Amino acid sequence: MPAMSRNIQVSQLDRRAVEDQEVEIVERKGVGHPDSICDGIAESVSRALSQMYLDRVGRVLHYNTDETQLAAGSAAPAFGGGEVVEPIYILIVGRATRKYEGQSLPVDSTALAAARDYLAEQIPKLDFGTDVVVDTRLGEGSGDLQEVFSEEGATVPMANDTSFGVGHAPLTETERIVYATERQLNTTYAADNPELGADIKVMGKREDDRIDITVAAAMIDEHIQDLEAYDDAVEGVREFVTDLARDHTDREIHVDVNTADDYEDGSIYLTVTGTSAEQGDDGSVGRGNRANGLITPNRPMSMEATSGKNPVNHIGKIYNLLSTEIAESVVDEVDGIRDLQVRLLSQIGRPIDQPHVADAQVVTADDVELAGIQADIEAIVDHELANVTDVTRRVVEGDISTF
Amino acid sequence: MPAMSRNIQVSQLDRRAVEDQEVEIVERKGVGHPDSICDGIAESVSRALSQMYLDRVGRVLHYNTDETQLAAGSAAPAFGGGEVVEPIYILIVGRATRKYEGQSLPVDSTALAAARDYLAEQIPKLDFGTDVVVDTRLGEGSGDLQEVFSEEGATVPMANDTSFGVGHAPLTETERIVYATERQLNTTYAADNPELGADIKVMGKREDDRIDITVAAAMIDEHIQDLEAYDDAVEGVREFVTDLARDHTDREIHVDVNTADDYEDGSIYLTVTGTSAEQGDDGSVGRGNRANGLITPNRPMSMEATSGKNPVNHIGKIYNLLSTEIAESVVDEVDGIRDLQVRLLSQIGRPIDQPHVADAQVVTADDVELAGIQADIEAIVDHELANVTDVTRRVVEGDISTF
Amino acid sequence: MPAMSRNIQVSQLDRRAVEDQEVEIVERKGVGHPDSICDGIAESVSRALSQMYLDRVGRVLHYNTDETQLAAGSAAPAFGGGEVVEPIYILIVGRATRKYEGQSLPVDSTALAAARDYLAEQIPKLDFGTDVVVDTRLGEGSGDLQEVFSEEGATVPMANDTSFGVGHAPLTETERIVYATERQLNTTYAADNPELGADIKVMGKREDDRIDITVAAAMIDEHIQDLEAYDDAVEGVREFVTDLARDHTDREIHVDVNTADDYEDGSIYLTVTGTSAEQGDDGSVGRGNRANGLITPNRPMSMEATSGKNPVNHIGKIYNLLSTEIAESVVDEVDGIRDLQVRLLSQIGRPIDQPHVADAQVVTADDVELAGIQADIEAIVDHELANVTDVTRRVVEGDISTF
Amino acid sequence: MPAMSRNIQVSQLDRRAVEDQEVEIVERKGVGHPDSICDGIAESVSRALSQMYLDRVGRVLHYNTDETQLAAGSAAPAFGGGEVVEPIYILIVGRATRKYEGQSLPVDSTALAAARDYLAEQIPKLDFGTDVVVDTRLGEGSGDLQEVFSEEGATVPMANDTSFGVGHAPLTETERIVYATERQLNTTYAADNPELGADIKVMGKREDDRIDITVAAAMIDEHIQDLEAYDDAVEGVREFVTDLARDHTDREIHVDVNTADDYEDGSIYLTVTGTSAEQGDDGSVGRGNRANGLITPNRPMSMEATSGKNPVNHIGKIYNLLSTEIAESVVDEVDGIRDLQVRLLSQIGRPIDQPHVADAQVVTADDVELAGIQADIEAIVDHELANVTDVTRRVVEGDISTF
Repeated sequence: MPAMSRNIQVSQLDRRAVEDQEVEIVERKGVGHPDSICDGIAESVSRALSQMYLDRVGRVLHYNTDETQLAAGSAAPAFGGGEVVEPIYILIVGRATRKYEGQSLPVDSTALAAARDYLAEQIPKLDFGTDVVVDTRLGEGSGDLQEVFSEEGATVPMANDTSFGVGHAPLTETERIVYATERQLNTTYAADNPELGADIKVMGKREDDRIDITVAAAMIDEHIQDLEAYDDAVEGVREFVTDLARDHTDREIHVDVNTADDYEDGSIYLTVTGTSAEQGDDGSVGRGNRANGLITPNRPMSMEATSGKNPVNHIGKIYNLLSTEIAESVVDEVDGIRDLQVRLLSQIGRPIDQPHVADAQVVTADDVELAGIQADIEAIVDHELANVTDVTRRVVEGDISTF
Repeated sequence: MPAMSRNIQVSQLDRRAVEDQEVEIVERKGVGHPDSICDGIAESVSRALSQMYLDRVGRVLHYNTDETQLAAGSAAPAFGGGEVVEPIYILIVGRATRKYEGQSLPVDSTALAAARDYLAEQIPKLDFGTDVVVDTRLGEGSGDLQEVFSEEGATVPMANDTSFGVGHAPLTETERIVYATERQLNTTYAADNPELGADIKVMGKREDDRIDITVAAAMIDEHIQDLEAYDDAVEGVREFVTDLARDHTDREIHVDVNTADDYEDGSIYLTVTGTSAEQGDDGSVGRGNRANGLITPNRPMSMEATSGKNPVNHIGKIYNLLSTEIAESVVDEVDGIRDLQVRLLSQIGRPIDQPHVADAQVVTADDVELAGIQADIEAIVDHELANVTDVTRRVVEGDISTF
Repeated sequence: MPAMSRNIQVSQLDRRAVEDQEVEIVERKGVGHPDSICDGIAESVSRALSQMYLDRVGRVLHYNTDETQLAAGSAAPAFGGGEVVEPIYILIVGRATRKYEGQSLPVDSTALAAARDYLAEQIPKLDFGTDVVVDTRLGEGSGDLQEVFSEEGATVPMANDTSFGVGHAPLTETERIVYATERQLNTTYAADNPELGADIKVMGKREDDRIDITVAAAMIDEHIQDLEAYDDAVEGVREFVTDLARDHTDREIHVDVNTADDYEDGSIYLTVTGTSAEQGDDGSVGRGNRANGLITPNRPMSMEATSGKNPVNHIGKIYNLLSTEIAESVVDEVDGIRDLQVRLLSQIGRPIDQPHVADAQVVTADDVELAGIQADIEAIVDHELANVTDVTRRVVEGDISTF
Repeated sequence: MPAMSRNIQVSQLDRRAVEDQEVEIVERKGVGHPDSICDGIAESVSRALSQMYLDRVGRVLHYNTDETQLAAGSAAPAFGGGEVVEPIYILIVGRATRKYEGQSLPVDSTALAAARDYLAEQIPKLDFGTDVVVDTRLGEGSGDLQEVFSEEGATVPMANDTSFGVGHAPLTETERIVYATERQLNTTYAADNPELGADIKVMGKREDDRIDITVAAAMIDEHIQDLEAYDDAVEGVREFVTDLARDHTDREIHVDVNTADDYEDGSIYLTVTGTSAEQGDDGSVGRGNRANGLITPNRPMSMEATSGKNPVNHIGKIYNLLSTEIAESVVDEVDGIRDLQVRLLSQIGRPIDQPHVADAQVVTADDVELAGIQADIEAIVDHELANVTDVTRRVVEGDISTF
């Protein structure tokens, strides 16, 4: 019985669904937030190194780049267009294998190019090399080679650490709203409203049936001519988010945007580049969103920084992504689940498709018995575990977001 | 009614006490772990800056230093004593006020001295300047001065952000064992056993009534002459931790130390300096222990990095520390509480002693009614909130640990 | 008598003209040499800061940027095209004024942009941000403002240091050949021969009537398909330089190119980017060419690094450039001079157009008496000193080369 | 005839002895000057690496560390004792061999320790790690091993570059005074006068029989209680230097100390640490004193930075030191020489004891014929060249100063 060999446990969760709790808090830091910039660079560097190793030597060699540090710059924003006066400094930290069978591998150049390309795509207003300086401190990786993931296919690696991943599904209304708010603002809305910067922070707070959404959105000075235009821009965001939230819920919705502004004394959230990293806000990897894109203090979370880690053998990264995938698959395919929490705990020395515990805890709908769906859940968990190397492949291909 | 003005809510927690859950996972990264080194330096720098500002200008000025980054070095450990070959690099990142009324304030020198002193105390084997290089990237803080905390006393600041803190009490057996294991090893045990390094990572996993404690402990090569001595050192730690754990519980205890060792191929956890930062393990602030010193995925946690933040006005830092204090005070003074979770949520623009919500959720003992202890709990929460500036004072004086 | 007030002394030089000495050594490091890269960046940064100050505040404020440091990268050149594997690191060091009457001035951004533009123009094969990382350590300049050079015109500043400049004219044949060789190779020849990199080092040695020209020229691998093509490229340079040299002299000419090559063991001067900075050759300001573009141990030289210094008030920079200008003007306008050496020595506290000594030493042609040309020489020296601020203006406008 | 095989040429110098010229300029930057700090660190690092390689592998491996860069700090000196507020930043740049036959060699740790020890000895007021931060950027040296200098003895290496060294003897009175002024102030005088810092710059200018000595001497604030004490300190230096100068010459002597001071507006040369590197003065290798400890624009000088270069095979370093040694030996042993200039020019591919040219140019005393001493001079030059590896040995042992 494969399910047993994988030690899959399905049980009732001993609390209410988060959706039914009185108070719920949810946060998402947008792609332009200094912590997310670091997450994004770290993960881009990781993907680029994986790809470079596959291209050059046919397999992913040892590396780990989960430690990007950002030190904020200094800027002088102004209506109509200001300037960055001291650059943002970004240091990519980690280790990587530089030599393989006598061949020099372009570790630093690859990492720097990945960071440059990522910034160009996500924060196009940042002029690379003058608004932002990127440097590397990549030590030599250990000589151990990772042969588990190569062009010829993947084998399941052994866990080399005791690590823990946790995932949830389905998202609550508040979670969906918070996530969608940032994503929609940074894509659909920004496409039509160039004044909106990428540094968008969304905080959702639900008390019973009232949801407060607080958005802090950096505006780009080049597209804002005066205070009136700024006020229009803020109001535009507020309306967009309000409409968006109403599509997700029948609860009462209140949206606040840039609440720290004080028009009287001219204190507004105006930036040159669309990110607070230009002035005073430092950032680093693993300090913001969890692997599912949210910060959810109502739910168990892993402290593990997922972004930048080697997807071939870093068990913490794999289990955090996989547990979320499992939770979503189960909820997609099995009816009657109100809340599902999946925990994966590794055991050193065993293949990672055979975790020490794979623990699915369920809050069923009122009319559903756990016994009736238990086998289905086990089967899906088992199937997903059996295909654990898919996570690696999809991470390398950029199909899974890590923050 | 002051309790009401503080919006204190006491309710039943809708889950079992963590002590009663089937599976519990707890982790603590010891002071010599690369992430903890960063936490410790960041907080030391913060304390030193606070004290410097108080000494020089009578009040704590604007600063924030919660972003120390460590890039690992390279070492060649050897029985009897090896050496560091490439230094660990530590970059202290943040902002601080350098000028006040025409006076230059020694921000960088103070930060560097604090880091040096902290390392000398916690990881004495690290030779400052050759085994470890410390540098700073401290930007100019905003001109805003923080006048709320001065020599003449404190006034309660306004919350300038929506932030969230969460604390728990009492600790479970597993949590107490994990915490005590690292603390006792790094003090009592290390005093008599100089071969034990400061980089101790403790993972506790409880399944029902069995507790597995896994310790990864860096051994210092100077005091280990051969593999036999190493094996004795590992066994010494195992025995000490086993005894220690038995003092805290009647549950079944299993202790493993340095499980990744492989004596056959000479792979053991031998270091020159007692920390894995000397070879390959990078670190940064806020990636490890939460404010109560533990990582507890069974409990709600704040993602906020507590270490290094300004204790005068950083609401996230204050609420994380205060919620833990409140939880501990309540449990100390009120009988019949099996598990208590305290959440504090700020509201922008209100004094921080008047949170948006102060939420105490309780699992009572079987024979205790919440109604019977609710007023006592509210009174303690109210009292602690009223004295919120005590947290600031105690942080500045170094009386509260942040990681 | 103005000439006297300027303490102009004209005398016979007590040695043979350099052209007549038995042995002469001359060297020029081309623009792609690591030391010249630093000189070029430092001077570009200086010009950009001067221009930025003029644009923003109408006058040049205090700065000094004469300390760029380059740490070499690592590269893997290959016939047909290789790659840089570790970037060149360039640190721009100096001081500059960041605030003026409440206005923030973009010192770092201006410096970084100047460096980027300079590199793009001079070493186009270097991919900015991946092949080369540029960072700044620009301290705060002193509060002293330099009001001597503004949009409204210039006043003559006071010397604030005892400094010394020396210039010569005319150049000897060997000097002209060495200088022209690098300039022609890096412009005319490179335009038609893309395989030639910018890192060209030319050494000229004359013994009596034989001149040996030794050229070290970095070849760019993208345009070199094999060893035969490399050999052709070397031979092409040799022929070009031989022809060029013959245009300047009737002496015997021998040209060697890339003499350190060893085809047998595959040791050739092949690069990815056209500069040895990509692999192993560090550089810094003031280590290469003197202000006239040459290193001439047969002549007195100033140790002063001219590139990167503030052209408004740095007396060493001004006097090195001016003494060369004076020497050239005199030789242009006065016949019968075989060798001329002009020395300017400042006196603290006096206007820089009134040096402590302005000393023109002459080797006259056989049939010329010094007395007959002395007055003409004095008049030209006097005129040039009177227009000392022209040097500043022309440096700011980029009309004078400093290395 | 060995002298011939070494191509030794002895001839009359075609100018007056420098001692007889009308105007003479000489400068020396003391050990605490920012440029000299860099020279001193670079050379200390070089010696330490040579010694480490000899200790570990029995021979000096490939390295070159002639590129230390210093970025000035920021300080707030005050009568009775001020403080450094931003540290001096020193970056050691170069290349070195890190691995040899599977053994890791502690390149960075050795370099950092050498820098720390050097600073502690030369500028003891600098608190390492807070007043000054030292970091390294040492690339991988090429794989080429230098087997010419090992514990078993030395073999003469081949020249791998065309390089040039020049030396002189005897020193003129002005040169001797300038050199002795800095050396005596920084040893004898400083021992009794702790207020004198190590950053002493001496400029000597002789016009005919008048010698002006201008000293800029950083005073240490801890030992200076007020302006009167400062003035006493300056006067003390002036008297000491005046007496010292009179011991070396019968010419007219004028000594000025700290001429840029302006007591009226409080502008004096007061420092916390005794070096101007603490505030605004950057430095780098090879920008100051030549290999003989002086800057002498009246004499041919090599641009080569001697400090920090590998003494086993860097021909520029060896020839600059050796030519000075030869000049001194000749003048010591042969009477009747008024001025002697020795030039050594290498030829690629020949052993370095057989230079392309070894050229000794002499100004003889009035009553001496060159022909009468020519053979003696040749013999000494020949002997010194034959023992060229002594220079390497003495550099490694720290017996020869390079700046």
